[in-house]
Amino acid sequence: MNFKQQLEEKIAIVDEYLNLYLPQIDNYQSKIYEAMRYSIFAGGKRLRPVIVLASCELVGGDVMHAVPLACALEMIHTYSLIHDDLPAMDNSDYRRGRLTSHKVYGEAMAILAGDALLNKAFEVVLKEGLHMGVDPLRLLKAVAAIADASGTEGMIGGQVVDLESENTDINIEKLNYMHLHKTGALIIAAAKAGAIIGGADETEVSALETYAKNLGLAFQIKDDILDVEGNQEKLGKPVLSDASNGKSTFVALMGMEQSKSLVKKLSEDAIDCLKIFNERGKFLSELALYLVGRES
Amino acid sequence: MNFKQQLEEKIAIVDEYLNLYLPQIDNYQSKIYEAMRYSIFAGGKRLRPVIVLASCELVGGDVMHAVPLACALEMIHTYSLIHDDLPAMDNSDYRRGRLTSHKVYGEAMAILAGDALLNKAFEVVLKEGLHMGVDPLRLLKAVAAIADASGTEGMIGGQVVDLESENTDINIEKLNYMHLHKTGALIIAAAKAGAIIGGADETEVSALETYAKNLGLAFQIKDDILDVEGNQEKLGKPVLSDASNGKSTFVALMGMEQSKSLVKKLSEDAIDCLKIFNERGKFLSELALYLVGRES
Repeated sequence: MNFKQQLEEKIAIVDEYLNLYLPQIDNYQSKIYEAMRYSIFAGGKRLRPVIVLASCELVGGDVMHAVPLACALEMIHTYSLIHDDLPAMDNSDYRRGRLTSHKVYGEAMAILAGDALLNKAFEVVLKEGLHMGVDPLRLLKAVAAIADASGTEGMIGGQVVDLESENTDINIEKLNYMHLHKTGALIIAAAKAGAIIGGADETEVSALETYAKNLGLAFQIKDDILDVEGNQEKLGKPVLSDASNGKSTFVALMGMEQSKSLVKKLSEDAIDCLKIFNERGKFLSELALYLVGRES
Repeated sequence: MNFKQQLEEKIAIVDEYLNLYLPQIDNYQSKIYEAMRYSIFAGGKRLRPVIVLASCELVGGDVMHAVPLACALEMIHTYSLIHDDLPAMDNSDYRRGRLTSHKVYGEAMAILAGDALLNKAFEVVLKEGLHMGVDPLRLLKAVAAIADASGTEGMIGGQVVDLESENTDINIEKLNYMHLHKTGALIIAAAKAGAIIGGADETEVSALETYAKNLGLAFQIKDDILDVEGNQEKLGKPVLSDASNGKSTFVALMGMEQSKSLVKKLSEDAIDCLKIFNERGKFLSELALYLVGRES
């Protein structure tokens, strides 16, 4: 299989299990499941779950043991988008070209759907992990890595800085902190959790974490570049939407040329981290090139 | 020690560790920790964590192993109150006589503080459990019980029914479902998680779950009674606030006398479940009597 086929195969596994973990049901909870599914199946890139599966595979682990972790990270990422879009936060009506959760289901249900996705992430990893007989210590460590990455010292920490920085001047250090936490933390956790559940040793976990840290920052700067140079149709949102929301971006702080060089350097650094895995690092290496070359 | 002293001792342990897990800090995250602390230290009864500790103790477990689970349940309960109070949900300005989170910190920070408390609950149980060397399988099962109870098939499920039932007629079956999930699920999980972490066998876990199920419902009906007959000063909120919010209550559906008999019957049923524990059941038995006799 070539890279694109391997990528599509992984995405198909993630979608299949997300559909199982978040079923269409007909009881008192039908509406909240509908809202959870609406946002989960809104055309996300599945970057985090793909990294979980690939990291587990790369270290020789059983990929099926990584599937609940992969889906959990997508649920956490999705809940953060639902809450970020709320009127009290970014007040976004559209995401990926579709109405946001609160525009379709109302604010109260959007808040609960976000809460429910965060909670479901932990339900799924714990219950499915127990059910599949995953090694308990590995499972605990992998889930702890995710919980750590999504909390106040991780993703939520980045959201707090984002919230408090709106319409204020922000320096490059704080912008780095914000993105490393808001976007980077979950991408790093994806590599870490996948590696741990696959039975990686400390050197391997650490190499994959550094890979993901570089990749996550490259990914974010690329987003900022696309926000200026991108095509609205491909992006599913207006160009310059960050600037009009009073958000600081790498492009605004460093200029376009320097931003592009940094994306290139970070993706090369990411790929360098995979050297210890030799040929087995090929998929994640191609993933880095694919992500910095994307147009949406 | 008499009951009141034992209760106060348990509450003191919970408060001490909540203070450790949610420290006052001075970095980019100082505001969100302040918001989390504001709601966590707002005078809650600590019912859920007390039940965790008592259940673990009752089955002969190491109470220190139950402390992170106890604090986690209080965090989950508190996050649900913060989100419930939001303008898009119940739109409450006061809780327990103090301004609600969004009135003090703004809506965006209140949403994030709620998210952060839910996330922190899982962080704390996983990281502290690993750190203390708690038996991994017991830990996984106890945390899974909590995750299950706080999600769409538990607490959030009750919140959804509550949300969808506002200003509509609701029958007793649906009201029972709502309370069993919105309030009951976490109380049952408290008993279950405490028992599991303490090494209880299945019969013991099941007895404690049934105790908590009866207690939780008695507790909720007592709340409805206090909403009509209570003293605003002791309650920290206006009497008849449920009725004025268009909320259905047991008192409205069954009448005051029948509601009072049901509280009595449920608390007796709860106490009956403790018989298998003989003298060791004394604290939880007195807790049931204490809760149905309270005035706030």
